[in-house]
Amino acid sequence: MRIEIPRECERIGSLQIYGLQKVYELDGGEGPHEHDSVIERIPSEVLYDRMREMAIVVPVKNERLKLIEGVLVGIPSPCQVIVVSNSPRGPVDRFNLEKEALENYAKFTGKKILVVHQKDPGLAKAFVEAGYSELLDETGIVRSGKAEGMIVGTLLAKWLGKKYLGFVDSDNYFPGAVLEYVHEYAAGFAMNNTSNTFVRISWHSKPKIMESSIFFAKWGRSSVNSNMMLNRLLTHFSGFETEIVKTGNAGEHALTVDLALKLEYAAGYAVETHHFVNLLEKYGGLLASEDDEEVSEKVTICQIESRNPHMHESKGEDHVEDMIDASLSVIYHSDLCPELLRREIMENVRSRRGDESPKEIAPVKMYPSLSKIDMDTFLSCCDEALNFNLASVRT
Amino acid sequence: MRIEIPRECERIGSLQIYGLQKVYELDGGEGPHEHDSVIERIPSEVLYDRMREMAIVVPVKNERLKLIEGVLVGIPSPCQVIVVSNSPRGPVDRFNLEKEALENYAKFTGKKILVVHQKDPGLAKAFVEAGYSELLDETGIVRSGKAEGMIVGTLLAKWLGKKYLGFVDSDNYFPGAVLEYVHEYAAGFAMNNTSNTFVRISWHSKPKIMESSIFFAKWGRSSVNSNMMLNRLLTHFSGFETEIVKTGNAGEHALTVDLALKLEYAAGYAVETHHFVNLLEKYGGLLASEDDEEVSEKVTICQIESRNPHMHESKGEDHVEDMIDASLSVIYHSDLCPELLRREIMENVRSRRGDESPKEIAPVKMYPSLSKIDMDTFLSCCDEALNFNLASVRT
Repeated sequence: MRIEIPRECERIGSLQIYGLQKVYELDGGEGPHEHDSVIERIPSEVLYDRMREMAIVVPVKNERLKLIEGVLVGIPSPCQVIVVSNSPRGPVDRFNLEKEALENYAKFTGKKILVVHQKDPGLAKAFVEAGYSELLDETGIVRSGKAEGMIVGTLLAKWLGKKYLGFVDSDNYFPGAVLEYVHEYAAGFAMNNTSNTFVRISWHSKPKIMESSIFFAKWGRSSVNSNMMLNRLLTHFSGFETEIVKTGNAGEHALTVDLALKLEYAAGYAVETHHFVNLLEKYGGLLASEDDEEVSEKVTICQIESRNPHMHESKGEDHVEDMIDASLSVIYHSDLCPELLRREIMENVRSRRGDESPKEIAPVKMYPSLSKIDMDTFLSCCDEALNFNLASVRT
Repeated sequence: MRIEIPRECERIGSLQIYGLQKVYELDGGEGPHEHDSVIERIPSEVLYDRMREMAIVVPVKNERLKLIEGVLVGIPSPCQVIVVSNSPRGPVDRFNLEKEALENYAKFTGKKILVVHQKDPGLAKAFVEAGYSELLDETGIVRSGKAEGMIVGTLLAKWLGKKYLGFVDSDNYFPGAVLEYVHEYAAGFAMNNTSNTFVRISWHSKPKIMESSIFFAKWGRSSVNSNMMLNRLLTHFSGFETEIVKTGNAGEHALTVDLALKLEYAAGYAVETHHFVNLLEKYGGLLASEDDEEVSEKVTICQIESRNPHMHESKGEDHVEDMIDASLSVIYHSDLCPELLRREIMENVRSRRGDESPKEIAPVKMYPSLSKIDMDTFLSCCDEALNFNLASVRT
């Protein structure tokens, strides 16, 4: 992979946010890692070194098996795959079909795949015993939702002893785009060799159908709004207007497991935007911190612009307004958010929602940082739980 | 890359045609080449060994620069790129814009790119002096057309001392699909280590817009017809009905330079189908051959099913009937074609064209095998010609 080094950087406390980096070559070949130019050549060996320590979490819910298999074809062989499924177990046991299909695929490829159901009672037990019952619903199993699946995937990556953790959606039509995302995660970690690195992908474009031809849109409405407000927030603290944030709600992202275990998780559509806000809260040095040691650790956000268009299964766009509101909510309700920005967010809501606007944007459910989990207990519970019939483990 | 070994094979004389091979993993990692299973793992090192000896020819005509750059992003770094452009030189000098854009891109990436214009007078001179003036029009320059551009690209690959030669279209929207094709070419050469190997790609699917949603079509009408008739031709000689041919008009294909220099080229839409027919004519042992030595050389056609959908710029489908006719014409007019199949082809034409059908399908312009070229003369002419202002060479 050949990729430019960041041109810009915003520093807030110990958090550094790099500007968007452009990819010049998907496959840069083998040989030495070339650092000497503004375009860095990261050879395949270096990418593989990172990928061997990487888990790729694929949240699944009712996707067609053909699509899931395509995504797995795109994930490079050295990575450990973690499929966290929340597909229904009846009347048709969709999860069982998925598990069989993935086990079969793993036989053909020798691929390392861990498949687990989000509602696995053994998993729920592990969360209770480790002191993180926030994740469970009233019936005592893990709540539904993608953010909840991501938390499960994060802890399973820890259980498997991985150093890096990336997320990839299961509804991508192009295996080659999945491959690119994972290579970019590895490139980001190779370029930023710290224990607190966050790699976020900005899609090159998203093909849309407009009057029966294809149009390559650059920005979705949801991204536009969350990027704008995150940039306003940064501007407030730095005093310089900035447009550095381009990946406010990047579903395609990867981070070190160390960092993932320190972050809060917002439920629903807000999870990605909240990661940004939470990093500012924890490492920006702007709030009275509980933990001075934590604030002194350097954290790097690296944003990479992928080269493939992002083409995923269309499930309608009914919830765009809700998605935007959720993203803005985590900014609005952050202790960091100045009054001026709160007013601006409410104006934004009113301009989109008109008469339906609430007086104040509703807060989003939050899960506390995973640092509160008793990790030893959790991991030993996993050792038991993953021998349950709801999981298939291949490492 | 992880890819299955062929399940089937048709042998006709010294030509062997392998059945379609499925790809299980786009990136199989590094390490040893694993041959022991029915799924072969071809590690990146082995792919790079092939790609260093490979030229990728990209025929260009008026494509948008953004698209061309995307295609180059997808071509792996070790490959030599050969852009053969037939874009207009006035009133806007499109070719010059391309040359500048590619030179600039090469500066950023160190990519090896040779850019040449199909109408370069130095190139025409080389063809005349080497005894291959068939390629020139009445004004003494190389004719327009993609097949003609492919011939130019083939000889330039020879000039650059390459062993393998692959073709990639310049209007592909997904750099990741281009990357996949080139890796598959390399995998095909790694799996078939002979001096006469032909790798042909069958697209996984082609996204089409149907009633404002996207539908992934498996086979185009043009492929269906040429594959069917090529299979009929094979059936006639083997006595067993076969469906082995799946890549009758595969634009994405690669072959050893040795083999490319032995083949005839049909002009227009028929070039790919005619490669199949010409291989049968030359190596099938079915016609009284001029060259016994040639017939005894083993030739392998390897067909690989790509995993990415093929999404290219839509330029309308006005010419589908002409494309089908051209493909069928080279079968019809081959000395191999039995009378029964000729009747079947004419029925096919009539059922598609109705009253407009000709009594006999028109023959297609043919270029003789490149073996008739005086190679030493051609190459030394190239040494001069490519210092012309119409070319940019970076090797």
